[in-house]
This record gives sequence, C-alpha cells and structure tokens, in this order.
Amino acid sequence: MAKDRVVLAYSGGLDTSVAIGWIGEQTGAEVVTVAVDVGQGGEDLDVIRQRALDCGAVESYVADARDEFAEEYCMLDLQANGVYMDAYPLVSALSRPVIVKHLVTAARQFGATVVAHGCTGKGNDQVRFENGITALGPDLKCLSPVRDLALTREFAISYAEKHDLPIETTKSNPFSIDQNVWGRAIETGYLEDLWNAPTKDVYSYTDDPAYPPLPDEVVIEFDKGIPVKIDGRDVTPLQAIEEMNRRAGAQGIGRIDIVEDRMVGIKSREIYEAPGAVALMEAHKELERVTMDREQARFKQRVSLRWSELVYEGQWFSPLKRSLDAFILDTQEYVSGEIRMTLHGGRAVVTGRRSETSLYDFNLATYDEGDSFDQSHARGFIELTGLTSKLAAARDVKFGKGEAMPKLNLS
Amino acid sequence: MAKDRVVLAYSGGLDTSVAIGWIGEQTGAEVVTVAVDVGQGGEDLDVIRQRALDCGAVESYVADARDEFAEEYCMLDLQANGVYMDAYPLVSALSRPVIVKHLVTAARQFGATVVAHGCTGKGNDQVRFENGITALGPDLKCLSPVRDLALTREFAISYAEKHDLPIETTKSNPFSIDQNVWGRAIETGYLEDLWNAPTKDVYSYTDDPAYPPLPDEVVIEFDKGIPVKIDGRDVTPLQAIEEMNRRAGAQGIGRIDIVEDRMVGIKSREIYEAPGAVALMEAHKELERVTMDREQARFKQRVSLRWSELVYEGQWFSPLKRSLDAFILDTQEYVSGEIRMTLHGGRAVVTGRRSETSLYDFNLATYDEGDSFDQSHARGFIELTGLTSKLAAARDVKFGKGEAMPKLNLS
Amino acid sequence: MAKDRVVLAYSGGLDTSVAIGWIGEQTGAEVVTVAVDVGQGGEDLDVIRQRALDCGAVESYVADARDEFAEEYCMLDLQANGVYMDAYPLVSALSRPVIVKHLVTAARQFGATVVAHGCTGKGNDQVRFENGITALGPDLKCLSPVRDLALTREFAISYAEKHDLPIETTKSNPFSIDQNVWGRAIETGYLEDLWNAPTKDVYSYTDDPAYPPLPDEVVIEFDKGIPVKIDGRDVTPLQAIEEMNRRAGAQGIGRIDIVEDRMVGIKSREIYEAPGAVALMEAHKELERVTMDREQARFKQRVSLRWSELVYEGQWFSPLKRSLDAFILDTQEYVSGEIRMTLHGGRAVVTGRRSETSLYDFNLATYDEGDSFDQSHARGFIELTGLTSKLAAARDVKFGKGEAMPKLNLS
Amino acid sequence: MAKDRVVLAYSGGLDTSVAIGWIGEQTGAEVVTVAVDVGQGGEDLDVIRQRALDCGAVESYVADARDEFAEEYCMLDLQANGVYMDAYPLVSALSRPVIVKHLVTAARQFGATVVAHGCTGKGNDQVRFENGITALGPDLKCLSPVRDLALTREFAISYAEKHDLPIETTKSNPFSIDQNVWGRAIETGYLEDLWNAPTKDVYSYTDDPAYPPLPDEVVIEFDKGIPVKIDGRDVTPLQAIEEMNRRAGAQGIGRIDIVEDRMVGIKSREIYEAPGAVALMEAHKELERVTMDREQARFKQRVSLRWSELVYEGQWFSPLKRSLDAFILDTQEYVSGEIRMTLHGGRAVVTGRRSETSLYDFNLATYDEGDSFDQSHARGFIELTGLTSKLAAARDVKFGKGEAMPKLNLS
Repeated sequence: MAKDRVVLAYSGGLDTSVAIGWIGEQTGAEVVTVAVDVGQGGEDLDVIRQRALDCGAVESYVADARDEFAEEYCMLDLQANGVYMDAYPLVSALSRPVIVKHLVTAARQFGATVVAHGCTGKGNDQVRFENGITALGPDLKCLSPVRDLALTREFAISYAEKHDLPIETTKSNPFSIDQNVWGRAIETGYLEDLWNAPTKDVYSYTDDPAYPPLPDEVVIEFDKGIPVKIDGRDVTPLQAIEEMNRRAGAQGIGRIDIVEDRMVGIKSREIYEAPGAVALMEAHKELERVTMDREQARFKQRVSLRWSELVYEGQWFSPLKRSLDAFILDTQEYVSGEIRMTLHGGRAVVTGRRSETSLYDFNLATYDEGDSFDQSHARGFIELTGLTSKLAAARDVKFGKGEAMPKLNLS
Repeated sequence: MAKDRVVLAYSGGLDTSVAIGWIGEQTGAEVVTVAVDVGQGGEDLDVIRQRALDCGAVESYVADARDEFAEEYCMLDLQANGVYMDAYPLVSALSRPVIVKHLVTAARQFGATVVAHGCTGKGNDQVRFENGITALGPDLKCLSPVRDLALTREFAISYAEKHDLPIETTKSNPFSIDQNVWGRAIETGYLEDLWNAPTKDVYSYTDDPAYPPLPDEVVIEFDKGIPVKIDGRDVTPLQAIEEMNRRAGAQGIGRIDIVEDRMVGIKSREIYEAPGAVALMEAHKELERVTMDREQARFKQRVSLRWSELVYEGQWFSPLKRSLDAFILDTQEYVSGEIRMTLHGGRAVVTGRRSETSLYDFNLATYDEGDSFDQSHARGFIELTGLTSKLAAARDVKFGKGEAMPKLNLS
Repeated sequence: MAKDRVVLAYSGGLDTSVAIGWIGEQTGAEVVTVAVDVGQGGEDLDVIRQRALDCGAVESYVADARDEFAEEYCMLDLQANGVYMDAYPLVSALSRPVIVKHLVTAARQFGATVVAHGCTGKGNDQVRFENGITALGPDLKCLSPVRDLALTREFAISYAEKHDLPIETTKSNPFSIDQNVWGRAIETGYLEDLWNAPTKDVYSYTDDPAYPPLPDEVVIEFDKGIPVKIDGRDVTPLQAIEEMNRRAGAQGIGRIDIVEDRMVGIKSREIYEAPGAVALMEAHKELERVTMDREQARFKQRVSLRWSELVYEGQWFSPLKRSLDAFILDTQEYVSGEIRMTLHGGRAVVTGRRSETSLYDFNLATYDEGDSFDQSHARGFIELTGLTSKLAAARDVKFGKGEAMPKLNLS
Repeated sequence: MAKDRVVLAYSGGLDTSVAIGWIGEQTGAEVVTVAVDVGQGGEDLDVIRQRALDCGAVESYVADARDEFAEEYCMLDLQANGVYMDAYPLVSALSRPVIVKHLVTAARQFGATVVAHGCTGKGNDQVRFENGITALGPDLKCLSPVRDLALTREFAISYAEKHDLPIETTKSNPFSIDQNVWGRAIETGYLEDLWNAPTKDVYSYTDDPAYPPLPDEVVIEFDKGIPVKIDGRDVTPLQAIEEMNRRAGAQGIGRIDIVEDRMVGIKSREIYEAPGAVALMEAHKELERVTMDREQARFKQRVSLRWSELVYEGQWFSPLKRSLDAFILDTQEYVSGEIRMTLHGGRAVVTGRRSETSLYDFNLATYDEGDSFDQSHARGFIELTGLTSKLAAARDVKFGKGEAMPKLNLS
C-alpha cells in the first residue's frame, strides 16, 4: 500500500532539512519538499533541490515564483497602499499566500494529504500558512514540526550531525530573518530589549542613510497604479521592484523599526527593510493625490486599513479580502502618470507629478491670471455646510454648555 | 446712536491694514482689530497693535495665545496622530479655532456683531473661520473683505498709497504663507505647476536635509500622550514644540510637498514645514505601539482619519469632533514613557522605547530562555480563526470558483 | 438664429406646467419637456405629453423607465441593503439619477444647454438633480424656476389662470408627495409638528396594519442578491417589486415615520411607504446572513452606511459610489436561495431559508448527533483571542485602575 | 492544608448541580457556587442557594444583580443602539460580564483560584465568561466541566440519580434557553433546520402578534439616553425594562429569528425575544434623530457596529470597549425628551417626539409661513459640494468612459 505523503515548505536551511527525516520518522509518511523563489536570494534553487533529496525527500520541487509574486501580490499591496500599523509594508505576510499556492498545487500533484511548514507556534506565519492552506485545500491537514513534533533547534543540530545531513549546523545567526523581493524582516536577539537600537549587521538590503552617495533622481511612470516605466525604460513589476530596491537601498531608504501587535495577542519588536516598496508606495500615494477623487480617496484609506489587517492575518484568500480587492482595483482606473522623486539619505521625496488623468485643474487652483473659480459660491457653501454645527452651538449656548472662552487681557 | 462694530482678524500686513478703512467705508461700522500670537514669529505684537490704530481701528487688541494653542490644540493633534491625506499635520487648520475664540471674545467685549477675516473665497481658511465663528457665536455675522468687498491686492496697494497708510506696499512675496508654532504652509507661485520642485527659498523652519549637522539624539518623555520632558528636562507643550522645531528643523525634518483636496472641491499644491510636529508625532506613534491595546489602536486609526477630516474642514467646535476627543483622550491613559530618537538628515528615527505601562511582555515575546508563551494554544486558535474562510473556500471548490492555481513545471 | 433650449423635468402638475411658459418669458429660451415614468402611477404619459405641448413646450418627450429604474437602481439598493439613518430606503434619492439620465439624453438630442427642474431651494432633490446633471453633462447649466425665477405656488395659480393653461389650479394637497415603484415620500403640512401622528390620508401604498387580512406566506428566490422568483413563478425586478408592493402593502408593511437630516443642514419630518422595498430587503438581509462570510458581512455593513449617505446626497454617479458598487456586487456572488416570509399586520417575518450556497453547516452547528465540531480547539482559541485584553487587565490591576467590583452581601 | 477552591457559576439546573460534585471528584477542590439574578425569573434564589449546598457546595452565594444589570449594562446597550448583525440586541452577551463580576468577587472573597461555568465548547458564552474572568482576574484559571471534564447531559442524569441529588432529571427541554430581563434566547432542536418556522412553544416573553389586544399608547421620557419616566411616572432603568417587557410583550413585539455568525466561526440559528429592549431602542433611536447632530449620528452608527461586535465577542472589559463607551456617553448629552409610541400587533411605532434639546427647527423646516431658511445659499452649496464629482465626470467624458446613456425612443 502506498505511503501517505506530506508536502513540506522547504527553505534549504537546517530546520526544514531535518524536518524531512523527522516527519518521516514521526508520521511514517513520505516527504515531498517544495522550495519557492520569491526573490529571497541566497542559494541556487538547484542546490536546494538536491539537498532535499539528499536529506531523504521522495520528491523535491522548486518553483521560480518571482514574477508571480511581484505581479499578483506586491502590486496589489502597492495599489492598496497596504501597510500594517502605519508602518509595515507586509513583506512576509505577502509572500505566504504565493508559497501556499505552490504547496497546495504540489500536494495535489504528488498526492499528499498533509502540508507542513517550519514555523513556530507563537508567530504570525503559522497562521498565514495554515489559513492559506485550508482556504485553498479545505481537505488538507497542516503540520508544524517545530510546534507539533517538538523539533527544537538543539534537537535539529544533534539530528543533523547524527544522520550526517549535508547541512551546516555550526552557523549561528543572532537574528531570525525572512526575506523576499518586497523586503526583509529581522527579529529576536538583542532586539527583544526595546531600548536597544539596531546595529549595522541587522541590515542587508539598505546602506547606511547617514553616509549616502549623491542624490538619485528617478521618474516612475504608473499605469492604473502599476509602475510600467522607470526613467523612460519599460519595466515589469519585478524589474521595477528590483531596480528600486537597488537604487533606494543604496540611499538607505525603507528601514523600519517598530513594536508590532501579532495575531496571537502579543507585542513583538520587528525590524524591516523595504527600500523598493517604500519608495514605490510614496510615489504611488502622491499620484493618487493628483488623480483620485476626494471621497474615493478618503474611503480608500479605511479600506486600506482593513485590507492590511486581513493580509497581515493570513486572510489573503478570504471573501472579504477579495471584495476589498474589487474596490481597490476600481479606484486605480485613473492612477496613471509620472512621478519624479529624489532618492537621498534615507528619504524618497516626490518633487514632480505629471498626469493626463489628473484632477488638478490649474485654472481652478491658481491665484494668478486665468482663475476660473467662482468665489461667489463660497458663501452659500459655508452657510449650509456649517449649519448643523451652528444649530448645535446655539443649543449649547441655550443650555449654558458653550465652549470655555479666553479672557481678554485688557491692560 | 452708536455705530455698529466689526471685529477684524488682523495680521499687520497690507491686506488687513487696508481692510480697516475699507470695511469702515463700505459698511459704516467701526473696526476693532484682533491680532493673535500663535507662534508665527515676525513683528512684535505692540508694533502690530499700534499699526492697526494708525490705520483707523477704534480698538486694537493683541493676545499671546502661544501656550493656549500648544496645550489645547497642538497636543490634541499629537494625541490623535492627526494628519490629513496621510501627510499634513493640520498646521493652519489647528490655529484657526484658537484665533476664532479670541475674535469672538473680542466681539462680545467690544460689542461687535460682525467678525471679518482676510481670507479669499477659494481656500479652506474662510470656511474654518466662519464655521468657527458661527459655532461660538451663532448670532454673529461673518465678513470677508477680499471675497465680499472686492478687496484685491491691486486695490489694497493703491488704497494704502492714497491714504498714506503706515504699511509697505512694494514688497512682493512670490508665495502665500501661513505659519505658527506647529508649522508653516506655503502655496501658489511657480508651485502651481505640479512638475516644479520647490526651491530653497520656500523653506524657513527647516535647513536642507542633504547637508545635515551631526546626528542629534533626543529622549522624549510622554505622560498620557503629552511630552513632559526632553532629555530629562521638564518642558511645557509649547517648549517641547519649540525645542523640537529647532533641533528637528536643523536636520531638515518635516518637509511635506503634496497635492491636497480642499474643502471647496478643488485640488491644490501645498508645501509644509513642521519639524517639531513630525518628530513628536513619530515618537508618539511608536509609544502608542508599545502601550496601546491592539484593537484600541486599530479603531483609533479610523477615528484619527475622521478627526483629521473634521479639523481640516473647520469643524473643531462641532459635536462629532468633541465626541471623538472623548474617545482619543480615553486611549491616552497609558501612553506614557520614554522614546529615544535620532534626528539626522531629514529623518526622525526611533531607536529605543521604555515604559512602565508597556504592554510588551519580554517573556511572552522572546524566543530565548524564559519564554512563557504556551504554543499549544496556537492550533485551536488557528483552527477557529480560520474556520470561516475554510468554509467559504470549500464552497468555492464546490462551485468551481476556487483560486486559479499555478502549474507545476515538472522538468 | 436658433433660440437656446432648456430641457425641463416635467411632472404634468401645476408648477412645472407653468414653468414651461415662465422659463420662456424669463430666459428667452425654448422649452423641451421630459416626463419619466418610474412607476409613480397617476396620469397616462400621453396625456402628460400633450399637456406640455399645450402649455407651450416645443418638444415633449416621455419615457417609460420603470424596468430600467427597477433593474439598475432599486436592485442595487436591495443588494446594498441601502437605508439612510437606519430607516429610509432611499425612495426619492434612487429615482433622481435615472430621471437625470433621461434629462441629459434629451438635452443632447434636442440641443439644450440648460436643464431645469421643479425643486425648491431647501430640499435634497435640487442637489440630487443638479449633482447628477453636472456629473453626466459637466457642460450643462442647471435651473430651478422655483428657487431661481421666483416661481411660487401663488404665482403659478395666477399665471395658469391668466394664460388659461390646461391644468387644474384649485386642487390643494395638504402634503408634498413624491412616489415611484420603490416607495412613496410624504412631507410638510401638519406633519411639521413632530408631536402629531400621521393621519390615515397620508398613506396610499399601504393599508392599515391594525386591520390586516389573513397572513400571506410568500417564498422569494434570489439569484446573486436579485429576486428572480416569487412563489415559484419567474419575475423581473420590476414585477418582484410590484407584486411585493401589492402583497406587503395590503398588510400595512413598510410605513416609516422619522425625523431626517437633510443635506442642506436642517432636520425635517418625513413619512415614507415602501412595502415592497422593506419586505424584499428583510428577505435579502436574512439570505445574506445564511450565505455571506462573517467578515465580509461586517465590512459590508460599513460600506452600506457610506453607500446610503452618498445616494441620499445625490452622488449616484460619483467615483466613490461606483467603487463601492464594485465591492457590493462582489459580495453578492453567493447570495442565492429561497426565503420564506409571512406578511401580516405590518410585519414581514422570515420563517425559513434554503440555499445551495449556504455557509450554515448543520453538522458544525448541531448539538445533537452528527456534531462534527471539535470542541478541543476552543481553549486555545479563547486563550489567544483573549490575550490582549488579559494583558491590558493585568496592567489595570498593577496601576490600581481595575474595574469597580460589586460587594458581596454576605448575610 | 486548605483545599483549593473553585467558584462555579450556578444556575440551579441539572448540569451545574452535578458539576458541584464532579468538579470536586475530578480536581480535588472545594466548590463555591454563585447564582446571579439578572432577571431570568424561575426559581427563588433561596431555593437555588440551598440546592447548591445540598449538592455539596462548601459555600453558596446568591446575588440580586437586577438593578446593576439594568443600569450598567442594558442602559449602555440602549444608548449605543447596540445590536449584532442588524438584529440581535445582545441579550446573553450583556449578562455575561455582570455575572463574571460576581464570580470574580466571590473568588476573591472565598479564596478560589479557578472559576468554572456550565458552557459548552462550541458556543459564544464560554468565550464571554473566560475573556471576562481573565480581564477582571488575570491570575484566575477557567474551567468548563462540560468541555474540559466531559460532563455530558447523559452523564449528568446518571450521576444525579446515582448520588440522589435534589434535582429533576426527567424534564427534557427541546431547546437550549438563556434569559434575563433584557430578553430571552432560544436555540437548537428542530430550529437547527433553517427551513422550519418557530412553533408557539418557543416563545415565553411575547404573546402572538397576530392576535393582539387593543393598541397600547405609551409616552417614554428619556434623560441623556436613559428612560426616566413612562406615562409620566418615574421609573428606574429596571422598572422601565420590566414595564416595557410586559406591555410590548403583550403585543408580540421583539421576536427575532436569524442565522447568526458565532465567534468560533460557525453559523447558527437563533431565536430571541426582547420586547422591552426592542421597543425602548426604537424610541431611543428616534429621539436621537431629533436631538443629535448629523455627523455625530453618522459616526455613531459606525461606533455602534464595532461596540456591538465587541460585546458579542465577550470584550466588555476590553480597552477598546471602554474608549467607545466614552464616545457614546458624550453623544448622549442632549438625548433627552419624550417619545410617544403605539404598541400593537408586533409593532412599536413612534407617533410623536418632543424635546427641549431638539435640533429640529420648525422655522427652518417649514414650507409655510415663517420659513427662515435662505434658499439663496443653495446654489453655492450645490456648486461646491458637487465640484469634485463634476471634475471626475469631465474626465470620464474626456476618456470615453462616461455613463452609458439611455436611447430616446422618438416615435
């Protein structure tokens, strides 16, 4: 009789390499590994693929999902201006659903009934993986070897050494790191003391903004909220992010250091680097200010808050997230045009905007010649927009509850 | 029979100096001027006071409202994290209600039935003044000499020269400027072309961030959302803002350049400088992340959006604004502690936080020894928080509307 | 040279009949009338058409827009559960945009540059007409003869008599009434005293609920939020509304009596009758409870509030309204199934629901045999969803700010 | 050494009577029972008190919390207009926190470290109890004998018979019922089939609305959102609810039958009766329409949604709930006056309102003599409130994306 199969999200690192054998021992199932390239850099996918086989995987699958990730996940975050807690551009949260898609596809392809991941039991990523997996495969079971099979780091080291696995066990990283093309997340270690400032070794995508190279001027052209040209050259979404990562990273743009509310109810200290994401979002937001209707933009701020919470919480494939997508995409119809920015010393500063679909009307705005705004409308507008407050104020006066007023100092 | 009286918001400049006489001529009323110091700098209040009398005012009142403005207006904006369109810390919008209070007080004191201001008919400030005036004095009438009595700049120059008023008529400023201790607003001129970058002469509160002095480390202590100490020294709200204006301004922090949706329905280009406000708000937001409950913080984001819209629109004294204040103040109960920041080259970067009332729990957050988080709760949590999406997903599958899945590339 | 032309929204009544000639006299323009049937009943369209010509119109156009109104306006309100101030199903507000469409179409067809309507200067409908007209024809001018050309009722009577217009001038209605297939609005008269209860003559679409006929059971089948069958028979949206108007109206369902906040800043007393709308919405809401995901439904409540405000305020054609439509339509994907209701004595009570796309899972919900809900997940779920409040509570205790507790009465 | 003690929420019924002994057997602890009267009716508290002792409790405490419940819980729900899913006035959800307060007080008084309740593992009440308990006593542990100690109904019957407990074991109720003075909740049984209508035996607080007595006119006077007089007689909050329960219940008002989204992720069918709550809320909402500022009322609708979700989810003592309370209480400042209603045949219909603090201004609203509304303001108001949509519409036209327009049928 065929053995059960488990699909394992495989990073190529110590923990998931050990998990291949450990899952097999603990569950009796065969392990199929899946490694997904979302732009995290590091080792070659083929090396990772082979290592999984060497560690005992019956199948080892690798996927280059960089364009898919950029086009279907990062671009939606850009269009949504999606940040969590006013700061975090959802770096890890965005990559989980695309990885999950490949895991579930592999589970179907290779006949697995369980999907395993390397996350612990106190972070967000376990929730994002498992919510994503059950959303795409409601019949699939989830397994976390770290949480459910007691796969601690100490155990992993001794297991790897005992079984002579082709993976380094001596390298000790002071931080826990997750990275993809949209950004990089760093936590734990001495950062757990909130009074400690990050040291230089924390950063990898960005250079020190205190010692920047010369200012870098860039013109980004958007079409319906998506960057399509940089300095006049056509770019794909992936290329746009990569180029902006390089150029904004060189200027030290996109470092974030916050205390964050996790899904599981605790606060944690998180450092992020997202040079491309931060610079692109700054440009996108200003283009929206030029091209988007006021009330649409105001409601979109509320939608963005809820969208970001949902994505942070692993609800990428949820019904509400999809309905919010419909709203967001509708708002992007006219978000087209060029933004000129100066990248320098940690700052991405918009200096010019140009759009065929602008709602800015020079003749209405100008105080110089050509002013077409009819000021005679103002009085009626003010009277009627202010009427409700005026009636309420008259009531306050009637009941002696008016605003406390300053005393005149008549010297 | 006594003449009617008009209280005029007086800046000491050409337009309002001419308005003193012009209002008299056009309406037959006596003019009482009121000049309010909200930290705008410039001429001495006594000089301004005398000029009004020299221009024909029957009474000339000046008020130092700097502490009042800082304590009752700027601090509430800080506690609210109030910014309009994700960027503008409401500089001019905040000063209008405090000026209005003094205007209405003066109207009562001096027996005036009309309050006049120097705003045009296409900006926000006319609305803020007039909504504020009718909210505090529902019986008072409003008058805008520029809008209602055709007081153009050209007319003002010829009127001043003809009547030999003690005010300069030759100085021509390329910009329209409004400033107070919370910040500075600049518009019009060549900035009306959205593709033009601001030139250096636009700025006054901030030095060029591209050539900063050495980094400046500051520790700000807050009590219930209000800064009470800087680097260990006690400060009043006004002192806190002034010191941060100086220190953050020297580093080029707080420059803002956006296209903005005005109340009257048009978009306009606005430049702001608010070094102290931006730095203090950055610190305050991080302290909230450390001390505020997650759901409280999330809803406060929505409240902040509405609060900022109301303040931008001159609804400071409206019933909704006051009820939102009640919410905001309740959330600040525990927003106390110290924030360490580095001010440098346009960036105000939080590097440490320390609070007796923190909700960050090291033992729950750490991945090291002492971890008190019980990971066994995670599975039940994930199962039940993910259940609604799982049921929805199963329905999608049943009706063939599941997510489009990637193809495995099995080479 | 050709004369200018004005398109006039024509009801066939006294005011707009007089306006035909009066507009001509006052502006020198030719008048083209447009009468739109949105199910208001009353006179035959051909009679109305001829009367306009007899009153001096150069062209008289009538349109049967009943199906268009039901399909594109009423159904969207139903899908949105759109009510203003928790009560008013937007009866008049919904009909204005469809009438506006026909007015603008006629203006293009007949070469008019101005569109006129019969509304006064203190109601909502002037805003809805004019906002709609400028949204569809930004170049068109608006004219309100009542507001702008001093066309009072007294003047209209004398004008009609003097010119011998074919319109009755003696009939005096104690109320101001607007009606269409979605409902009926009644205001003014003795209802302006808020303590007065409505008398029987106010109502026309509904019989007295205090003396109902026998209960009427109805089964309504929805497809994606739209009623498609009633008691097993296929219905168009118009037929569904008409049948429910008849059946729910006979039971006295859908009477509404509220004090309402108008756009222009005042409160007014309004009576509505909307038997079909109220009964259909009750059914639709319950079907949503059965078929819609929890978080989607919660956010949709917020969207519904904003959508209703926008529609009330004449922003049907605004960018935000359209983006909210995209959200709403996305949520209706699975809102299909049958609702059984009992209509009786003013109540439309759902008694059964049945849906292929239900998210109700009997096996998860039941407390009897077959229960598939795993209660062991509850503890982890409660621990982690309650953790933030627990940490906040521990802080309250630490700072002596815990909840005031009752004293035990140990007798 | 003293034994550990467990405080048990005691109803006097079979399950919790058996739990007294069963907890003792399973945990070795002594059991202290607490029975709280929140107006649920049924047995005398002294009888319940004695039964607990007879079943083995070492202490048995009973508390009459009816006034406390009405004043501090039900009144806040009334002021908030708090309903879940547009329908459910939070009957059970409101009573849990007041019961929890007495449980925690008793735990302190009697030296218990664990608090136990009789809820199952798939409902909302377990969450409400446990979140409440840890919010008031972060150090306390929670225990659910049904969920955690396998206390099934079958086991309870055999245990009671075996130990000869003074409690009936034969009575079998087809439903699961919870009731208090604010209302009554009924679930399970044949109601789990969504197509089944409720039968008459489901109801107890309300008579059949199809056969009502004569109409009952009532005048309710509110002070700051709280009912203080009924038909001119002073009432406490408890008396107000009780009287309205009786009078509205006799008319069959307040029956609710919905499919509801539970916290644990499933949908369930729920029937409620809340005659007093529904009638009082209808009156309160209309009084708000008369006395509350428009924008305040609009935002309060959003606050009410979130408040209701929090209360439904057992977050009564959470920081956000308290901050929302601050908002809500601030809005009630002027919600004072009289509402006249007719109660009849399932309907509670407001027929008159009278308030010293009304914002309704007859002279602004009337179309008759005395009209003080200046219609000349309307044009400017419409021009500027419509300007953003007009600009957006002009852009649509420019890019050929204008609204699809009807064709004129020129026969």
